[in-house]
Amino acid sequence: MNNLRAYLAGKRAVVDDALKGCFQPPEGPAADIIRAMAYSVFAGGKRLRPILCISGSEAVGGDGTGVLPAACALELIHTYSLIHDDLPVMDDDDLRRGHPTNHKVFGEAIALLAGDGLLTEAFHILARMSLPNGTRPEALVRVIGLIAEAAGHRGMVGGQVVDIQSEGRSPDPDVVRFIHTHKTSDLITASTVSGAILSGADEGSVKALTDYGQRIGLAFQISDDILNIEGDRRVLGKDVGSDEERGKMTWPAAFGLDASKKTQADLVEAAVESLNPFDHRADPLRWIARYIVERQR
Amino acid sequence: MNNLRAYLAGKRAVVDDALKGCFQPPEGPAADIIRAMAYSVFAGGKRLRPILCISGSEAVGGDGTGVLPAACALELIHTYSLIHDDLPVMDDDDLRRGHPTNHKVFGEAIALLAGDGLLTEAFHILARMSLPNGTRPEALVRVIGLIAEAAGHRGMVGGQVVDIQSEGRSPDPDVVRFIHTHKTSDLITASTVSGAILSGADEGSVKALTDYGQRIGLAFQISDDILNIEGDRRVLGKDVGSDEERGKMTWPAAFGLDASKKTQADLVEAAVESLNPFDHRADPLRWIARYIVERQR
Repeated sequence: MNNLRAYLAGKRAVVDDALKGCFQPPEGPAADIIRAMAYSVFAGGKRLRPILCISGSEAVGGDGTGVLPAACALELIHTYSLIHDDLPVMDDDDLRRGHPTNHKVFGEAIALLAGDGLLTEAFHILARMSLPNGTRPEALVRVIGLIAEAAGHRGMVGGQVVDIQSEGRSPDPDVVRFIHTHKTSDLITASTVSGAILSGADEGSVKALTDYGQRIGLAFQISDDILNIEGDRRVLGKDVGSDEERGKMTWPAAFGLDASKKTQADLVEAAVESLNPFDHRADPLRWIARYIVERQR
Repeated sequence: MNNLRAYLAGKRAVVDDALKGCFQPPEGPAADIIRAMAYSVFAGGKRLRPILCISGSEAVGGDGTGVLPAACALELIHTYSLIHDDLPVMDDDDLRRGHPTNHKVFGEAIALLAGDGLLTEAFHILARMSLPNGTRPEALVRVIGLIAEAAGHRGMVGGQVVDIQSEGRSPDPDVVRFIHTHKTSDLITASTVSGAILSGADEGSVKALTDYGQRIGLAFQISDDILNIEGDRRVLGKDVGSDEERGKMTWPAAFGLDASKKTQADLVEAAVESLNPFDHRADPLRWIARYIVERQR
């Protein structure tokens, strides 16, 4: 765990620095949109997706630095999804990571547009990034397609739709699997894989990292569900028990709490196994898989 | 005008066909998001942006067919912006192009996500498009960056923010220019230019088409403002006089109706002049410039 802590802290600092470089100073008539976008990006995220992008690069021999713009783009997409998710027409949340949600600070119209702006800026950053040495533009086009597929109605947005529509319905294992896979796991998979593709990964490595991403992605969302039952509000920075109150279709609701913990542990073991083709340079990905079960927030 | 009518009708049919190909059948747990996305795309748009993309391709010697995926992507982005714009937290409109707005049919949460889905799918389509013969992937990456810049907080989203924030304030010429340039003109410019870049345009042509796009884009938004005062509700498919009611910062509000008509005509002339380097293959772009002043909706 000490290796992991040091690794995560180091990468988080690198990602935060790179994210700061993504925002021009809030000047001009549209200054408020830049303020609103930056507010949620710097409201204390774990930076899991950008770190997975960097670790995916390192696992296939990249240095992790050349993929930083892609790492930032993934965090902007994640942040946009949180802003829209927190809006009154969606989950109607007042607190996120211990801070007032975007619309509580900037109003609903600006929060909506800040989400739109972050999603669009992600693709702007991707398209304008300098390619790591030896990477061909075809690889960048592939990564843009992969991230768009994972973020849109074929992925995250599709998962959110079913999540919203399933509130209050009786839990259905197939539906829960659909929600968790698309709402969470797709973008986590794309994060890991895009770092690798931009660092010249061969198709075997892409396949193995896709398996890894799908497994930790699902485990991550199950652990989110478990933390919503057993977590500490102060550590989480958001309310506990809110899923049950809202009748959210969670993994524990469909399978029970004990079975959820067992599935989560099995997924982490399977994720680590899918890293067998890689040497020690994939150790951070191995640590991250285990961290998912042990994290408190 | 007969040439123009036939040209627009023909291209509209081609674009509509291509757009149909962008949507899989609404099946599976997330079927509603596909329904909601398709609903607004097929609610009777003019297809101005996709047609400009095609005409931009033709002006530099392309056949217009190879750029159809990009043309569709631009229409999806335009449609997403209308769906979010119509939401109660923004303009709160019940009617769009004579049909109930997306949130009136599908509810606000699904409408929000349908907008998110359309914006993301636009980049998915761009990244997965087959390149026209001889076009290099670098050109596609450039086009993705250009469209993202025009659509995001540096462009359309930035214009929308200032549009919303300016409601009820006393008209300011600089602010109106900012709103119209970014809210409308940026994506119209990107539409024209991206068709050309994907068809191998040289930098001189890109510069000339950028000038053309900025001029017709501004003229188009001014004509929208004028139609909101003088238009026919039945032809427009939306309410007339709504801008004044809401205290929108329009061109006529800042400069007066007569001066707005004069500026619009001057911009169209200047747009046609910027096409001087091109031969008859830019005639459709010339027709479209004149159509902008003469249109009824």
